[in-house]
Amino acid sequence: MKNLKELKKNLPPSLEFRSGGVYIIDQLYLPERLKFKRLNNYLSAIEAIKNMRIRGAQAIAAAGAAGVYLAAIKYRGQDPKKFLSHLKIKGREIKRARPTAHNLSWAVETMLADLQSDKVLNLKKEITLRFKDLLVREENNNIKLGAWGERLIKKGARIMTHCNAGSLSSIWFGTASAPVYQAWLKGKKISLWVDETRPWLQGTRLTAWEFSRAGLDFQINVDSASGYLMSHGLVDLVIVGADRIALNGDTANKIGTYPLALMAKKHKIPFYVAAVKATIDEELKNGKNIKIEERKSREIIENTKYWDRPIAPKGTKAFNPVFDVTPAELITGFITEDGVFKAKELKNLFK
Amino acid sequence: MKNLKELKKNLPPSLEFRSGGVYIIDQLYLPERLKFKRLNNYLSAIEAIKNMRIRGAQAIAAAGAAGVYLAAIKYRGQDPKKFLSHLKIKGREIKRARPTAHNLSWAVETMLADLQSDKVLNLKKEITLRFKDLLVREENNNIKLGAWGERLIKKGARIMTHCNAGSLSSIWFGTASAPVYQAWLKGKKISLWVDETRPWLQGTRLTAWEFSRAGLDFQINVDSASGYLMSHGLVDLVIVGADRIALNGDTANKIGTYPLALMAKKHKIPFYVAAVKATIDEELKNGKNIKIEERKSREIIENTKYWDRPIAPKGTKAFNPVFDVTPAELITGFITEDGVFKAKELKNLFK
Repeated sequence: MKNLKELKKNLPPSLEFRSGGVYIIDQLYLPERLKFKRLNNYLSAIEAIKNMRIRGAQAIAAAGAAGVYLAAIKYRGQDPKKFLSHLKIKGREIKRARPTAHNLSWAVETMLADLQSDKVLNLKKEITLRFKDLLVREENNNIKLGAWGERLIKKGARIMTHCNAGSLSSIWFGTASAPVYQAWLKGKKISLWVDETRPWLQGTRLTAWEFSRAGLDFQINVDSASGYLMSHGLVDLVIVGADRIALNGDTANKIGTYPLALMAKKHKIPFYVAAVKATIDEELKNGKNIKIEERKSREIIENTKYWDRPIAPKGTKAFNPVFDVTPAELITGFITEDGVFKAKELKNLFK
Repeated sequence: MKNLKELKKNLPPSLEFRSGGVYIIDQLYLPERLKFKRLNNYLSAIEAIKNMRIRGAQAIAAAGAAGVYLAAIKYRGQDPKKFLSHLKIKGREIKRARPTAHNLSWAVETMLADLQSDKVLNLKKEITLRFKDLLVREENNNIKLGAWGERLIKKGARIMTHCNAGSLSSIWFGTASAPVYQAWLKGKKISLWVDETRPWLQGTRLTAWEFSRAGLDFQINVDSASGYLMSHGLVDLVIVGADRIALNGDTANKIGTYPLALMAKKHKIPFYVAAVKATIDEELKNGKNIKIEERKSREIIENTKYWDRPIAPKGTKAFNPVFDVTPAELITGFITEDGVFKAKELKNLFK
């Protein structure tokens, strides 16, 4: 098994539009069970995003686009003006489901941009086309991104990754994992260090699931093992994903990315961010004003057991910001569908 | 409640020698239950150290000393030479229980150093005295260390700590927590950021238990939140413990300490190591050759559940080194029972 088709058999897309229905892998059941869930309306898209049945920058973008599509096709009226203002309201609601990832708002805006006040039926057709097109285009972007990134991976490379920026975080094939899959498809022998990624354990629950389905060679480590692993010369390259990239290259990604990048810099290990251009926020000069989502204390404490027992005394509270911002100067380069760029070059992508 | 006596009522010593018996808090039952366990012989001391019923540099030193004491008093023969060589063998066995912490070997050596070939009965008396003395002296060292460290804590300080270098890691009062308790006894308003400390969750299970027993103001965060917290100006000071300190100041401590120190340096936040002198390894020039214990994969994977379910696909392996070495240049100072020192000054403590 070493081609895209076979990989897709073992590792299905995280969101698919088939026979008129939108289906996602319900990631809350992983790694135990591969379970699909149909999104029936825009509210179930929002629910899936908020409760992390689907997560990851590009995957929630796809779910957001699905939400707009579902809001459109379920609409009963015939007045195009009312229809469009209905969609705008639903779009705003969808964007609010998770605030940090840029791709989500990008997807909603892409779905709704410059719609002409045509017949509702035609508008529905146009929105359906846009949805299908977004899925195909973004998936292809991942495959292109992977091909660019693959060139950075030497034979025998030991690659570290954080969180899940894999197929599950995207429509398919992943962002941070795309160069990894491309290297592996080419037959390069590589191995992976997978940060477990507290609190939600995306590394252990999702990335490990993906890599074991694909048949890659990987090991889990705790998030704070970067100092040990890097100072012992056990890491050759770090590739992470991104939730929002400012024009200067400052990058919001899963909490823990910044300490990882700092340690990589200290040990002169290349540190790459892999993301499609839709993750770059053209309106954001730098990372200072990125809104960082804070989630509930229970994601750290009550949801976790050790030896099947509670991990904290009753009433203990945790502070749970789920992203951090890595300063551009710690990032060796950005792997995108258009090539690999330095932070300084990012703004040229929008000229 | 703001004096040592009252604190001890709420927070009992982690090892006590009373009415001829050695009792430890069995830390495997925390935070749910405060359960004491009697150590009946040197093998039960080793078992308690290996299985982390008692852990933390000074606490395992005390348990190691208890092991030597128990091996001595249980000895049946009358030949002093045989008695001493018996103790040497047991001592070596005890030291091997956990390899990284210097205090453990220090304690065994302190118990056995320069014993004259006297009658066995007299040797047993001497060993009993040494054991009692070690417990009292080391506990007092913590209280002195705390008083030195307290001067570094400003009113309102938000202090970050990693793992448990609290009372439970010591005989009583802690090392990293000693300045905190001293500041709090003086009525300084302070608050704590407690790293949960994967994989074993010493922060959540032990430090949170301690701080809630004492009535301190604290919050848990994931280990990888240092970048977020420090870049947002939410941390004023970091104090951690140590398992082994080289003469140049390189410091082995719980995995994650090095990334934390690096981030503190980046944000110009003072980073202190608090340890009694018994943690300093006079024979070690620098941290390069510190033996780092690797524990089982299951401490990361199988022992942990999320939503009461397994966190990884079957067969997933984790690499689990449990300490890392922080280079001396990242450490602002060392808080000891004799004062606060720069890395360069450590070697003078042994002249």
